[in-house]
Amino acid sequence: MAQPSSVAVADTLPAETRTALQRLFDPRSIAIVGASTSPTKRGFQAVRALQQAGYAHPVYPVNPKATEILGLEVVPSIDGLPYGVDVALIALPGAAVPDALRHCAAVGIAGAVVLANGFKETGDSGAELDAALARAIAETGIRVIGPNTSGMLNVSTGANLVGLQDVPTGPISVVTQSGNMLLSLVNDNRALKGPGFHAYIGLGNQADVRYDECVAELARDTRTGAVAIHSEGFADGRAFLVAAASAVQDKPVVMLRGGRSDVGRRTALSHTGSIAGSDAVATAVLRQAGVELVDRSDELAVVAGAMATTAPIASGRKVAILSDGGGHATLAADALTARGIELAQISERTQQVLRDLLGGPASVVNPVDVAGATDADPTVFADAVDALMSDPAVGLVLIVGLYGGYHLRFDASLTAAEDATADRLLELTTAHRVPLLVQSCYAGDIVSNHDRLRAGGVPVINSIDHAVRVVAALDRRGRRLATASQRSSLTLPAPAPRAAAGTGILDEPTARALVEDAGVDIGGWTFARTVDEVVTAVTGYGRPCALKIVSPQVIHKSDVGGVKLNVVGAGAAENAQAIIDAVTENVRGAVIDGIVVTPMADHGVELLVGATHDPIFGPVVAFGSGGVMVEALEDVTFRAAPFTEIEAHEMIDETIASRMLDGYRHLSVIDRTALARFLVRVGDIVAAHPEISELDLNPVIASKTGIVPVDVRIVLSDTHSGAHA
Amino acid sequence: MAQPSSVAVADTLPAETRTALQRLFDPRSIAIVGASTSPTKRGFQAVRALQQAGYAHPVYPVNPKATEILGLEVVPSIDGLPYGVDVALIALPGAAVPDALRHCAAVGIAGAVVLANGFKETGDSGAELDAALARAIAETGIRVIGPNTSGMLNVSTGANLVGLQDVPTGPISVVTQSGNMLLSLVNDNRALKGPGFHAYIGLGNQADVRYDECVAELARDTRTGAVAIHSEGFADGRAFLVAAASAVQDKPVVMLRGGRSDVGRRTALSHTGSIAGSDAVATAVLRQAGVELVDRSDELAVVAGAMATTAPIASGRKVAILSDGGGHATLAADALTARGIELAQISERTQQVLRDLLGGPASVVNPVDVAGATDADPTVFADAVDALMSDPAVGLVLIVGLYGGYHLRFDASLTAAEDATADRLLELTTAHRVPLLVQSCYAGDIVSNHDRLRAGGVPVINSIDHAVRVVAALDRRGRRLATASQRSSLTLPAPAPRAAAGTGILDEPTARALVEDAGVDIGGWTFARTVDEVVTAVTGYGRPCALKIVSPQVIHKSDVGGVKLNVVGAGAAENAQAIIDAVTENVRGAVIDGIVVTPMADHGVELLVGATHDPIFGPVVAFGSGGVMVEALEDVTFRAAPFTEIEAHEMIDETIASRMLDGYRHLSVIDRTALARFLVRVGDIVAAHPEISELDLNPVIASKTGIVPVDVRIVLSDTHSGAHA
Repeated sequence: MAQPSSVAVADTLPAETRTALQRLFDPRSIAIVGASTSPTKRGFQAVRALQQAGYAHPVYPVNPKATEILGLEVVPSIDGLPYGVDVALIALPGAAVPDALRHCAAVGIAGAVVLANGFKETGDSGAELDAALARAIAETGIRVIGPNTSGMLNVSTGANLVGLQDVPTGPISVVTQSGNMLLSLVNDNRALKGPGFHAYIGLGNQADVRYDECVAELARDTRTGAVAIHSEGFADGRAFLVAAASAVQDKPVVMLRGGRSDVGRRTALSHTGSIAGSDAVATAVLRQAGVELVDRSDELAVVAGAMATTAPIASGRKVAILSDGGGHATLAADALTARGIELAQISERTQQVLRDLLGGPASVVNPVDVAGATDADPTVFADAVDALMSDPAVGLVLIVGLYGGYHLRFDASLTAAEDATADRLLELTTAHRVPLLVQSCYAGDIVSNHDRLRAGGVPVINSIDHAVRVVAALDRRGRRLATASQRSSLTLPAPAPRAAAGTGILDEPTARALVEDAGVDIGGWTFARTVDEVVTAVTGYGRPCALKIVSPQVIHKSDVGGVKLNVVGAGAAENAQAIIDAVTENVRGAVIDGIVVTPMADHGVELLVGATHDPIFGPVVAFGSGGVMVEALEDVTFRAAPFTEIEAHEMIDETIASRMLDGYRHLSVIDRTALARFLVRVGDIVAAHPEISELDLNPVIASKTGIVPVDVRIVLSDTHSGAHA
Repeated sequence: MAQPSSVAVADTLPAETRTALQRLFDPRSIAIVGASTSPTKRGFQAVRALQQAGYAHPVYPVNPKATEILGLEVVPSIDGLPYGVDVALIALPGAAVPDALRHCAAVGIAGAVVLANGFKETGDSGAELDAALARAIAETGIRVIGPNTSGMLNVSTGANLVGLQDVPTGPISVVTQSGNMLLSLVNDNRALKGPGFHAYIGLGNQADVRYDECVAELARDTRTGAVAIHSEGFADGRAFLVAAASAVQDKPVVMLRGGRSDVGRRTALSHTGSIAGSDAVATAVLRQAGVELVDRSDELAVVAGAMATTAPIASGRKVAILSDGGGHATLAADALTARGIELAQISERTQQVLRDLLGGPASVVNPVDVAGATDADPTVFADAVDALMSDPAVGLVLIVGLYGGYHLRFDASLTAAEDATADRLLELTTAHRVPLLVQSCYAGDIVSNHDRLRAGGVPVINSIDHAVRVVAALDRRGRRLATASQRSSLTLPAPAPRAAAGTGILDEPTARALVEDAGVDIGGWTFARTVDEVVTAVTGYGRPCALKIVSPQVIHKSDVGGVKLNVVGAGAAENAQAIIDAVTENVRGAVIDGIVVTPMADHGVELLVGATHDPIFGPVVAFGSGGVMVEALEDVTFRAAPFTEIEAHEMIDETIASRMLDGYRHLSVIDRTALARFLVRVGDIVAAHPEISELDLNPVIASKTGIVPVDVRIVLSDTHSGAHA
């Protein structure tokens, strides 16, 4: 006998003040469009999944033929739904989707989850359907998750539109394009005994709802402790950067990227229709936005789970290792060092406390090794942690080794002592406000004291490498939160009026003037229109100069004799004339506008500085080593523009080039602040001028006299309206 | 009532033909010296552990006071033991150990496991005891494992001298200095459902038995499938290299190194008294010896377990990925690419077979994604694997995604089909002789088809990253086995007679002559003893030359005006005289032997080539990028000398410098074979001349005209008798 659903009693749901996206992610009523009476059909399983998950709000199966599904009264058509249902799960074939969405919008449905595939991920064959879908979304304003998605899941409320059962409730929220990745995460979380999940959004093709909106919405959600993202590419990378940079102020955002290699990218394109750009650019700018990128798929669950429950390391404080095995202590110290994480220098006083506590064989410098002092009485661990957390140098205590397994290794009678120690550790981490992390080779066993720690928000992890990876994330987050006010929001300024008409390559004087007008000191230069002006300029500089032809017909200046280097006053006239003659002879019909005169750069560090308009992330600045090894080294990193001075310093620090700035060999010390400001201004230029598709200052010579670009080259484009515009 | 042990019936055990080490590692009789009646004492637990492990051979508790322990008759003293017991476990305080060893040796005991600590790992305080131990070993010849060890374990026979229970029997043999590492490995193996263990040797302080002997012995042992090593340093690194290079012909050797960072090294020294040298040298030469080095502690169990049961990838063949989820396929392809492992280019024919099998939505290029084609019938997986293994390009099939979990994800009725598929996969991997590896996010669940695969030697792994790490190891092993005959045994030749008397820096002509005599072409050079001879030499070369002073009093030649570059015939006399005058003026009492004249090197790639006598590994050659960025780049790798041409090619390929050899920018193409041979000969020199502590050819200019060292500098030392000598 069908239970009367609310259809029978009201044709409008209560008035709703939430946004469409809030209603979509946390629905208080759900329609299953394409509900089925056949247990093998998704339209049946969807209804069953909601019931099994204990979803407490109205569910409306929609089917023109059936009358009852799993005890629920069936609505014959979308039009028959009460007005204002929050979400429709569309379990219809692709071709029927656009029309269904229009009907959903007409009855006030906020959002739809579209399961069907056969859209853009199939290439040309799905293009027409994809266009129809896009039109339906644009014309109705309904918010759509999918198509080609595994669904959506709100574990906390039981709004299970995925069908996966027994997902534990907890603070991790997941956004991905791949349903299997959710499955992996759930299994990884189980193996890790991690803290469980709040929301899952399977974005599929991202026809409407995209990563940026999800991350923004989930960061605002109090039940989310951390957002875990798996992505194979962004429809709008800049929007994601802006959303992430804001979201990470509230919640950690952890991301695993697929399609980073060429072969992986090809695979990703074939199954999600994603746009995947340069891995190096994406890695750099996502880090800039504060996203915690994991390189390994087995790190996503553990890092997101730990970050969801564990406080970051306070900026300026360092890590203390407490070990009950020298082998583990050494491996943990190695792994931390490999990630550039420093161990805390613990005070003499703390060392004395530990020495009194642990006795002779123990090592009381960090890493602290109890060396058997806890074998008979594991409660000593808590005393040692207390001592370490009392030390102001210590920002996190990492316990490694056999911790919590003494009752298995030595004697079952130690169980109570280990349980009590766990309780005390939770008190200590709260009282000292110093986070605690436990690595134990018994983490995979059923150990009650570990479970107590986990329930209290202290991760207990089996792998030293995973534990250290979590430490790195907590360390980075602490530093980021401390410097939040000094960072870019990554929003782009309103486009400035065009500096120059047309497209193509600007002539060098125009390019130099544009860069200089933006406040970048590029050193002395003169645009000489005659041979006499060249002579005057060279003589004026009083040192060897470079002469370069300016002609709209000449692009590769050196190839046609258009460049002379190390020209001194006495040879200026002769060299200028030689350039003019050579270009006239080599380039038929060349119009010669003049010659750019610049003093030769001092001996210094050759740097690569440039900017491009990245198709995914918008304007980005590149920085790295210049000079002869530039292609062999590939020492280059990126920042999305506009960016700030602290971000420029971090950019510099990432490169091998940075090792040559502080008085390397016979080179002078370079003013890092001046270099950082130079990069910031280059970023400001490309951020303010969306028409600039390329700005090339390569090479830039940094010396004690300044930061001087040898060349300034700007390419304009009319097609600058990238996804971010 | 005490059971009569064989003490009662014989005072000599049967005659033994095995070596002392074989008897030690696989004892057929064991004495527990320091056996105890107190259950909390190790001397009691040791007896109990042997009984619990089902050790079937005689056990002799030794204790002057007790008469019976756990039903065994107690022998009052070591002297009372029957002659020829294989192994004594010495559970006595450190001070009593040397004397006990002498008594053991007197009654024909082959080896002892010494648990006590307080030896060299405690620094000065243990030095005296350490010396006494060394004397007892040297004078008696008894083989000793330890001291400061957790013990030794032969799982196959139940010779459990560690006390750890429930270690599963299998093919992994473990050598480590840290007992806790064994615990970690056992727990990791359980979590991985790995293949289990054969032998464990806890080396402790390595007072006698060392890593090299263990690896050699275990590689010969038919019950060992792979040797897993955790090490914090070698007492004799060269001996280990030689043993490993030989052992890897038979068995994979997988190693995790602790103490790689400075802080980790400090920790290691404090608890095992190890010598830990340069991480970069150790990494390079251990790889050269064929050791599979893992960088993460969570990789040791999984890589050793998989290598113990899985065949390597045949050289020249590549990897095929078979996935049932695009997300996993992409991540696996990314991870393989990041490790430099190529995907197989599968043939048109194979693609057609797969297309027929999997239908439209599937991707039939590698990575192959079944895209739902197996959901209803997982046996299709076996057909797809059959197709892939039939393709001659394919050397390994890696299945990734949900494999084996369909009966959990979709319908329990699929269990039988999945079990049958597992059986068929085992048949296929045997029939095609192509190894199979499975990654599944259900690997941590209880899944019968996975257990069947594991029992058949196919690893089923949860982490994509771990699975790919295993692929890398199997790929490397396949290539190594195919090139085994072209590799160095790493044994050092008998020392050659000294080329020059004394110690210190050789003068440049002598150094050049030594290098040239060894068959290294270092380009033209002349030792001119007069200004006239300089003029003749420069004129003879007919191109600009470098002039360098030769004087025993001058070390830093440039600093005292002892070098002139780009000298042509016309300026030769003047420049030579200028050098002589400058040195005479700047270095009081300088004896001027003459001037070395060399033609200036052509424009080319600047390379770093040098050799040193490493304190751990003996003679090693360094190669990398030279030039201005050398310290910033740290682009340098190493090989233990003597090495072969293929090893030199691999050495070159590891460096960034190698990217500049094939016509980089305006540079000419460098003859890689000539460069490889150059490096081999440099290696031969330092291998044959143990008195050379340093050989520096830096920089070497490689150009189309040859491989020319700009300088040749040799430092001799009397203290060359390193551990390997």
